[in-house]
Amino acid sequence: MPPDTAELSPTLSPTLELAIELMRRPSVTPDDAGCQALMIERLERIGFSVTRLPYGDVDNFWAVRGHRGPVLAFAGHTDVVPSGPEGQWDSPPFEPLINADGELCGRGAADMKGSLAAMLTAVERFVAEHPEHDGKLAFLITSDEEGPAMDGTRAVVEHLRETHERLDYCLVGEPSSTARLGDIIKNGRRGSLGAVLHVHGVQGHVAYPHLARNPIHEAAPALDALCREHWDAGNEFFPATSFQISNVRAGQGASNVIPGDLEVVFNFRYSTEVTHEQLRQRTETILDAHGLDYRLDWTLNGEPFLTAEGELVDATVAGVEEVIGQRPRLATTGGTSDGRFIATLGSQVVELGPLNATIHKVNERVRAADLDTLSRVYETIIKRLFT
Amino acid sequence: MPPDTAELSPTLSPTLELAIELMRRPSVTPDDAGCQALMIERLERIGFSVTRLPYGDVDNFWAVRGHRGPVLAFAGHTDVVPSGPEGQWDSPPFEPLINADGELCGRGAADMKGSLAAMLTAVERFVAEHPEHDGKLAFLITSDEEGPAMDGTRAVVEHLRETHERLDYCLVGEPSSTARLGDIIKNGRRGSLGAVLHVHGVQGHVAYPHLARNPIHEAAPALDALCREHWDAGNEFFPATSFQISNVRAGQGASNVIPGDLEVVFNFRYSTEVTHEQLRQRTETILDAHGLDYRLDWTLNGEPFLTAEGELVDATVAGVEEVIGQRPRLATTGGTSDGRFIATLGSQVVELGPLNATIHKVNERVRAADLDTLSRVYETIIKRLFT
Repeated sequence: MPPDTAELSPTLSPTLELAIELMRRPSVTPDDAGCQALMIERLERIGFSVTRLPYGDVDNFWAVRGHRGPVLAFAGHTDVVPSGPEGQWDSPPFEPLINADGELCGRGAADMKGSLAAMLTAVERFVAEHPEHDGKLAFLITSDEEGPAMDGTRAVVEHLRETHERLDYCLVGEPSSTARLGDIIKNGRRGSLGAVLHVHGVQGHVAYPHLARNPIHEAAPALDALCREHWDAGNEFFPATSFQISNVRAGQGASNVIPGDLEVVFNFRYSTEVTHEQLRQRTETILDAHGLDYRLDWTLNGEPFLTAEGELVDATVAGVEEVIGQRPRLATTGGTSDGRFIATLGSQVVELGPLNATIHKVNERVRAADLDTLSRVYETIIKRLFT
Repeated sequence: MPPDTAELSPTLSPTLELAIELMRRPSVTPDDAGCQALMIERLERIGFSVTRLPYGDVDNFWAVRGHRGPVLAFAGHTDVVPSGPEGQWDSPPFEPLINADGELCGRGAADMKGSLAAMLTAVERFVAEHPEHDGKLAFLITSDEEGPAMDGTRAVVEHLRETHERLDYCLVGEPSSTARLGDIIKNGRRGSLGAVLHVHGVQGHVAYPHLARNPIHEAAPALDALCREHWDAGNEFFPATSFQISNVRAGQGASNVIPGDLEVVFNFRYSTEVTHEQLRQRTETILDAHGLDYRLDWTLNGEPFLTAEGELVDATVAGVEEVIGQRPRLATTGGTSDGRFIATLGSQVVELGPLNATIHKVNERVRAADLDTLSRVYETIIKRLFT
């Protein structure tokens, strides 16, 4: 049951009030739990046109306001990861509170209901001040960022592509900061390419190795070669492409049986210096060179994207500097984000949000004051782009 | 319930009658199911002194007859491996029969109740003809060959060692033949040395490999080096020592986690050209050279043994040649056998038994006529040694 805002302390800022209202809704992927209805109500009240875009059991919406010029969309997700063991939390994960250290505590505080609240109040203030603003403001909100990510941003982006919707600038609210608010903004992400490798041998008894073909023995030099391969050197924006084996499995436990198959799971995090096609080809060339009998099943989790420069990067860097007083560093490190889907529209994409130290952990929290600051940064970015 | 011999066809030889009586007793390891009582009754009837040597839930006995000279022991086991899926058998595994092709079918036909029957009838005929024979005849029988092999032959051998029992020649009834009866006799076995290797790394996220240490990546070149190592060239009697990895395991399934540990299970089958101490040392040298953080847990399953020459090999080769008309080949191939324990007494050890094509499988069977021939070969070997 959504709480009545009257329950909240009257001393809280509108951003913190909204963040708390969102966090009280236990919106574990893909259940939106009423978060989007709350956002939509607020957006419609200030003149946004909202298109609900549910796909499967995932709620999404696209909201837009304004009549002319470039489009700046705030992108984010209302879903959160599960709480994990509730007993390890200092306070119940879906009963947000501000503790004695001035931290907003609860699931979603940092990833990313705090950002959603900061975006929405930033827009509310901007619209109140500039009801006839240049440019178009938009929201691209999903409830499937933490899950399979199939029916969320990916699907909304396909809808925008089909309806020829313009999206010039996209500000994603993912928690990009590491040591202090705004120290890092992300202007790209590495690609992620995964694979499951099955190496086929011939099962047998360890006492009769000449009658068997051990897939572990055959694969060992090939895996070593893949680990040693210099895939690229990265570039100004990206670290070198990395290859990591996450799982190996062969044998049923019996110590006297040569296994018939070896399974290897590996993953590339790759820069814009190589393509996923090149990585596939080079991997297969190495496996073939070792004469392996194998099957490879590839999964492209996301292509790399990069907004090397442009109005959005400039406005974001300047906005952080103006409000916080320190210049942020651009980075492309970390996991994937929904930015990978949005970038396929040709949009400039930047990620800026609160500190990510506690995300996906118990006792997720964020400095309450940071959310107010973040909202002012977002507002400044809008002003720099549209006034 | 043991059958009455009166039920059996009067046309069967004593060897086949006894084999069938033993096979009707479902003596799955370590349950002897009355097999040894039957053997003991027959042996005592012809003047053997029998010492029952039960250890834990394993029945064993040592039986001896004669007053002077070298000791020839027949060694074998009354236990059998489980039937496996009974529905896949052409006839019930513990209801032995001779089929239209003249094959004795049922669990234990080849491994090794057929041999036990052949030994016993060979000794009965020899004793009837030579009641005051030179030399001593003995039986070393266990019900734990197919199981852990701790409380069976290994324990009996320790008893014989403590009681200073002499054992010059040991003829093990394991099914040594491959294409035709007596084509191969085994005059040794390779050693078996096993190990479980744990390679320690540092767990992490595949997106942050610099914060982790991937034990699969670190181990790959070391495993490759172990696979490529030339451990020895074997010798006249043994093939080259072989190294085989039977199991590898790392990762919990998640494709975005660098695992913290890798487990590798491997096994050496080794010749008399190296010792297990040398293999351990050389393995650790290779692992150390690759800078691995590891733990190694070794298990010595059996040291190699070899009866390169001597009266027993001569008598066995000549016995096969005399009865079957073809000269057998000496070999040390295959898995381990209880001969590894007996050889530690300094005894000459040779293995001779029926064809091993169907052992441990459904529809285990052996040519019925082969068991009569085998009994004549055993009798001839006794005569060559003791008359």
